[in-house]
Amino acid sequence: MNTTHIETVTDTTPEQLTAVLERATAAAPVLAATLPRERAAWINAAADALDAAADELVPLAQQESGLPEARLRGEVARSSGQLRLFADALVDGALLELIIDTADPGASPVPRPDLRRVLVPLGPVLVFAASNFPFAFSVCGGDTASALAAGCPVVVKSHPGHPRLSDAVAEVMAAALRDAGAPEGTLAVVHGQQAGIDALRDPRVKASGFTGSVAGGLALHEIAVTRPEPIPFYGELGSLNPTFVLPGAVQERGSDIATGFVGSYTLGVGQFCTKPGLLFLPANHGLEEQLVAAAEGVAGAPMLNERIHQGYTQGLQALREVSGLTALVTGEESDGQASASLLKTTVPQLLEDADRILEECFGPVSIIVEYADTDELYAAAAAFGGNLTATIQGTEQDHADAAKLLPLLQDRAGRVIWNGWPTGVAVAWAMQHGGPFPATVGSVHTSVGTTAARRFQRPVCFQDTPSELLPEVLRDKNTFGLSRRVNGEVTRADIG
Amino acid sequence: MNTTHIETVTDTTPEQLTAVLERATAAAPVLAATLPRERAAWINAAADALDAAADELVPLAQQESGLPEARLRGEVARSSGQLRLFADALVDGALLELIIDTADPGASPVPRPDLRRVLVPLGPVLVFAASNFPFAFSVCGGDTASALAAGCPVVVKSHPGHPRLSDAVAEVMAAALRDAGAPEGTLAVVHGQQAGIDALRDPRVKASGFTGSVAGGLALHEIAVTRPEPIPFYGELGSLNPTFVLPGAVQERGSDIATGFVGSYTLGVGQFCTKPGLLFLPANHGLEEQLVAAAEGVAGAPMLNERIHQGYTQGLQALREVSGLTALVTGEESDGQASASLLKTTVPQLLEDADRILEECFGPVSIIVEYADTDELYAAAAAFGGNLTATIQGTEQDHADAAKLLPLLQDRAGRVIWNGWPTGVAVAWAMQHGGPFPATVGSVHTSVGTTAARRFQRPVCFQDTPSELLPEVLRDKNTFGLSRRVNGEVTRADIG
Repeated sequence: MNTTHIETVTDTTPEQLTAVLERATAAAPVLAATLPRERAAWINAAADALDAAADELVPLAQQESGLPEARLRGEVARSSGQLRLFADALVDGALLELIIDTADPGASPVPRPDLRRVLVPLGPVLVFAASNFPFAFSVCGGDTASALAAGCPVVVKSHPGHPRLSDAVAEVMAAALRDAGAPEGTLAVVHGQQAGIDALRDPRVKASGFTGSVAGGLALHEIAVTRPEPIPFYGELGSLNPTFVLPGAVQERGSDIATGFVGSYTLGVGQFCTKPGLLFLPANHGLEEQLVAAAEGVAGAPMLNERIHQGYTQGLQALREVSGLTALVTGEESDGQASASLLKTTVPQLLEDADRILEECFGPVSIIVEYADTDELYAAAAAFGGNLTATIQGTEQDHADAAKLLPLLQDRAGRVIWNGWPTGVAVAWAMQHGGPFPATVGSVHTSVGTTAARRFQRPVCFQDTPSELLPEVLRDKNTFGLSRRVNGEVTRADIG
Repeated sequence: MNTTHIETVTDTTPEQLTAVLERATAAAPVLAATLPRERAAWINAAADALDAAADELVPLAQQESGLPEARLRGEVARSSGQLRLFADALVDGALLELIIDTADPGASPVPRPDLRRVLVPLGPVLVFAASNFPFAFSVCGGDTASALAAGCPVVVKSHPGHPRLSDAVAEVMAAALRDAGAPEGTLAVVHGQQAGIDALRDPRVKASGFTGSVAGGLALHEIAVTRPEPIPFYGELGSLNPTFVLPGAVQERGSDIATGFVGSYTLGVGQFCTKPGLLFLPANHGLEEQLVAAAEGVAGAPMLNERIHQGYTQGLQALREVSGLTALVTGEESDGQASASLLKTTVPQLLEDADRILEECFGPVSIIVEYADTDELYAAAAAFGGNLTATIQGTEQDHADAAKLLPLLQDRAGRVIWNGWPTGVAVAWAMQHGGPFPATVGSVHTSVGTTAARRFQRPVCFQDTPSELLPEVLRDKNTFGLSRRVNGEVTRADIG
């Protein structure tokens, strides 16, 4: 969809892939043997290099993705900040989840040996980059950052929407990692669908992360989990991100909600996995005029690429054919640009045709759903499958309704938002980005936040091992003041 | 294999299974809504009831499994202790992994909202019970304990080797849970292979744990991960548990090692997943006579059931046909009893015929592997795939060799033991029971130790949610003094 000519890159050949995987395999034990603060220094170096290269990388990203500069600069800052957060969590010790139970000869029914547990890296990780975040969910994104922090070499299968940027980012980061002392093979990029599939089947790859469509994700998932040696596959697939506006909120700040909602669902031309795809409003909301005006006021913009734009227009067409949906705003699709569309329905109609209405449509469209009373609202909330997020807009007078709604949403989403919008995923210790299927496969994990590293680590317990043979982080003397759970209590103190 | 007549139980019908799953589904939100200390009280009640019923349960277990009373009493104590450890971890807060980042309006590149993360239960969990631990890896075992602690209703598919015991244990625990206030449907047992498969395919089941054979586990794994809604499947499959004896240890206490090794590999008639299946000794060890005498001195005993005994004799026969293996002790298999067998080989022969020699044989057989020098030792260690455990026997003079061996073992095992034997899995915070494939599918998790609960939980993050609408455990006031990571630091204090 971008009018500028995009140079393509050549697909990675089987021989090149083998070389990449060999280097990653050779790097794995070196990374595994590093102290947390060494690995943190490498990651911080990569973060600094990324920031320093922003002026060269952002124009390339603009050219390949069509996304605006400010947004892309924000993504770079987010990505470098994310790398630094993982480095912090390494230095803290949190990422190693150190647990120590000292020997207890009097334990019943049998004496307890000395047990010391640490998380170790799984080995080379294959990351399938996303289309919609050329930085934040691509080569320098969350999967890469968390895998590196875990101590795993990373091979990124680039997204075809930004292959040259992928190479450029990998070059910047790989050089910084190397200069900081990390081994060759710590980070590499491969191109082409076949290379991605071949890598996923390769026994040298020990885990994989993916962000993309339900269909694509499930196909790769099946390969990963039915290989002769099954490996974990963490896929972020699809999400509707329903938003529930309670009556008090409409009364108090209906206008702001209308504006905020349209801003959120059209952000980045609706190409966010956290786009609010449904807005539930009380039947008498009186906001239709404002919603329509706001949606009509959003300028058309190119989508990420022609394929995504085609998928969007097809999805939109399917929604328009649903008899229970009424068009409020019909965006223009001319000239390769997508404008905002808005539809509306009621809860009874939604429930009657849930399969078709609750189909994610990746792009700048959303659906207003009017509820007659709170019973309808709860019934609608219960009709959802898994989602990345669910949002409530409410005031204090809505708390009783919200208290009934919340357990339903907690059951169906990884993140529950109060008086905000789901787009925008803060990078923090507590963040959860993931949710029950089909939002993700692997809902026990997150792809954003410090605990994301855990996807690429496994625990090893050392039993009765002499101090000098233990990993330094597990010895009695807590040289680096790491957080450790010792005999059930978290401490940074030495033992004994 | 047991000479007493065993009453069979009837397979669960599809209608009965539906009823069981309906009750579990109804119980799920009730369990999810409990405070940690409520759930802990229920679990402690189940533990107390189990101990109190030991006099009735143990004879039934003896009758069905043929295992001796003392061993089974130990299993009951282990199981009740395990339940209490999970209850402790609940009361501590550790099992909820509470992470709170308070709002940071000055965060870059964008302000950070208030984020509060808690682990919530996945929903009904299906546990496939093991043959070899009628208590500790069956109805009242680690999978059940960790799932209940996670807040999940549990449906156990009984092992056909001890169906009546399974019913009896479930009855004792379910009554205790009910009396303590837990909902109906918190714990149930189903019987029959088809009921297990049907349950695994049922959309009401949200996760599954399994302990058993590689073939059986992989078949069930495939069902779980290729369902329309894939669910996590945690399978403990097979393990060889190699033990490496270094020269100093032979010199200092060779005799004890010979005795300890034979005791460990013949414990429970060799029917432990942690049985040491290979013992590496320096070529000049001089312990053969003692090893043979110790193995010959082990009395024959019945295996758990006829099917397992048949599998063992077939596996033994296959080993005997490997030309590189020499028989040191050939156990008698007459009269339905299995006696200890012992084979020997060298590292070059092992490496030449690794596929056949490194095939797990479940029963009282093990293999002595002689190494000419430490290079051979490292080469042998590198030849292993995934294992639950790996063990080193050494002295201070062996530390240099051990330091080279340890990284190889850490890469291949979930637990590394120094101067102990792998049989015996302590129940503790730091325990890791699991390992790289084929030891387990799902090596990022453990099936023993407090972190086992995490297999059945997923994180939910509440963003900017008013205090009174938050789960009580996430509010500023830390009413129950739970351990929480607040703005990066673990604390039991209130916020603000």
